[in-house]
Amino acid sequence: MAEEFPMTGGDGPNSYAKNSNAAAKAADGAKAMLVAAIFENLDIETLQSRPTTFRIADLGCSVGPNTFIQVDNIIDAVSQKYHKKSKVQSAGELPEFQVYFSDLVSNDFNYLFSTLPRDRQYFTAGVPGSFHGRLFPEASLNFVYSAYALHWLSKIPDELRDINSPAFNKGRILYGNAPYEVGQAYSAQYAKDIKSFFHARGQELAPGGLMLLLIPGRPHGTLPAQNSLAPYFQPLESTLADMVNEGLLSEDKFDSFNLPVYCPSVEELRLLIEENGRLDILTLESIGQMPFSLPSAQGCRAGTESILRKHLGDEIIEPLFDRYSKNKNIAAGSASLVHDDSMAVGFFVLVKRKLL
Amino acid sequence: MAEEFPMTGGDGPNSYAKNSNAAAKAADGAKAMLVAAIFENLDIETLQSRPTTFRIADLGCSVGPNTFIQVDNIIDAVSQKYHKKSKVQSAGELPEFQVYFSDLVSNDFNYLFSTLPRDRQYFTAGVPGSFHGRLFPEASLNFVYSAYALHWLSKIPDELRDINSPAFNKGRILYGNAPYEVGQAYSAQYAKDIKSFFHARGQELAPGGLMLLLIPGRPHGTLPAQNSLAPYFQPLESTLADMVNEGLLSEDKFDSFNLPVYCPSVEELRLLIEENGRLDILTLESIGQMPFSLPSAQGCRAGTESILRKHLGDEIIEPLFDRYSKNKNIAAGSASLVHDDSMAVGFFVLVKRKLL
Repeated sequence: MAEEFPMTGGDGPNSYAKNSNAAAKAADGAKAMLVAAIFENLDIETLQSRPTTFRIADLGCSVGPNTFIQVDNIIDAVSQKYHKKSKVQSAGELPEFQVYFSDLVSNDFNYLFSTLPRDRQYFTAGVPGSFHGRLFPEASLNFVYSAYALHWLSKIPDELRDINSPAFNKGRILYGNAPYEVGQAYSAQYAKDIKSFFHARGQELAPGGLMLLLIPGRPHGTLPAQNSLAPYFQPLESTLADMVNEGLLSEDKFDSFNLPVYCPSVEELRLLIEENGRLDILTLESIGQMPFSLPSAQGCRAGTESILRKHLGDEIIEPLFDRYSKNKNIAAGSASLVHDDSMAVGFFVLVKRKLL
Repeated sequence: MAEEFPMTGGDGPNSYAKNSNAAAKAADGAKAMLVAAIFENLDIETLQSRPTTFRIADLGCSVGPNTFIQVDNIIDAVSQKYHKKSKVQSAGELPEFQVYFSDLVSNDFNYLFSTLPRDRQYFTAGVPGSFHGRLFPEASLNFVYSAYALHWLSKIPDELRDINSPAFNKGRILYGNAPYEVGQAYSAQYAKDIKSFFHARGQELAPGGLMLLLIPGRPHGTLPAQNSLAPYFQPLESTLADMVNEGLLSEDKFDSFNLPVYCPSVEELRLLIEENGRLDILTLESIGQMPFSLPSAQGCRAGTESILRKHLGDEIIEPLFDRYSKNKNIAAGSASLVHDDSMAVGFFVLVKRKLL
């Protein structure tokens, strides 16, 4: 059974809406590439006859504003391509756009809907469910987008919590600097999840449809343990370890807690996409180090509160993040960008659904 | 600016989910007609080539379970029609179904999504917005359904609150037994709203697509004042009047408060649909008295809390419904069906988008 780990909803101080700067910076950096990708690769000819609906899905959209900004970028680029191609200047010749905002059932769709841009030029729908399975009818999507969401696994591999397994992940919450077997357990779960993801998208994308993914990954030739999101979560791990030392959290609970995130290498990813058979890889490249500043207590809480609550209990949350905010690296100023070679890099992935 | 009056969300004791029996009974009574309507009138031939998506929208769906039950009825009927027509028994030849659950932005979509049937045979999306305007791309819907939602107006006509107007609706919260001008003000607002509704649906329905509406209305030849939903809301009106008499609510506030609901006659409705031009009326008939039991305090609250809060203030809610529950007609047992000739009747409306 897949688990669900949504971002914290609403617009309170601990919400994702107020604490998603890292993702915003990362996605913003890829905007020019996004526009170029659409210009160069979108085949307007393969779309069905008028009246045409151009359907876009943002998978793992969380709540705004990042998703609204990227959707505007996508629609702008597609519209420009239409204008250029057809040499028609009147907007009446454009397709109508329908945008599906998709995330887990537990995402705060009420908040998402209440903050939709009032001047939006598209029809809206919210789609609840896991992107590791089917969410849309066959061949119904023209453009799929997903930014910094695919590193979330559908579940935590069982071995990590098995004291008798070589992959037992004692004293860590991720695979950074962990034994080989820990990274392998994460890698195997990722392969399973991402294959399901591409299988579903291969069915949902219309022939000729594009999919653009921004994915945290690791450099060519490195082991999982060497490059991960671990530095990003190091203050969380050390705060939890402190609480164990002080008797505020049982060692068993700490040892059995792991974050369900993983960063693949380009080669891992390429093989997993090629296996699919319905998708042509147009671009698969590193766009450099992930923009990286240590998350504030609020920022960390927005992304991890639901999973921490589930595995460590409700009562841990307030004391944990109170302590977290006093961690020396956080208190010293988390806003500044940190350079750490063991941090994940960003991948820009563009695939096209084969015409068959 | 249109106002929003959603049902009370969640699954608490005052929620719509727990208090929607009247609507359920009414819709259930129309099930056989719904199935027959689809069998007789759905043209499978006009659907696009495979792979086909059959798109269904429930407008004013509120939260479950009623909407889930009716969606299942619709999909069952469409599937049977496919099987019969194509004489193919394998489910593989069926279209894929995509269901849009639509209601106001303030509807509790989080609750709706969390209670979706686990074994559903369709793709899901939630669509926030008013059905008085466009919600979907052109020609994108194959079947539109709306049950007992179209009596809600987009706003309360200004004249009702204007002390200098002959339509000033003193001492009443609806147009039942009101002067002619009050009914006319309601009727004019309804005409405006429903024309917008049909205009939008005329664009959104695919050629040959069907729309089935269950609408509270009044018998042929009666005036608005004679047949309305007023008996249903009489305990609410008299409880508010009592609070005015006891000085707990200002008379001004009471006089300026009106419920934004209206029940048209068949003739009114026919003219408004025919004016549209894109829709053929297949069926437009009364299916008899609305199933009618006086709403319990919780039932009344589920439907009216948001509008009462908005117009009369938050502080009125608890004392109001405490008193309401002690109203002699409510305390006497509201569960039994009441026969009242001045109550609205139900209309079964089936229209088809012209092929052009």
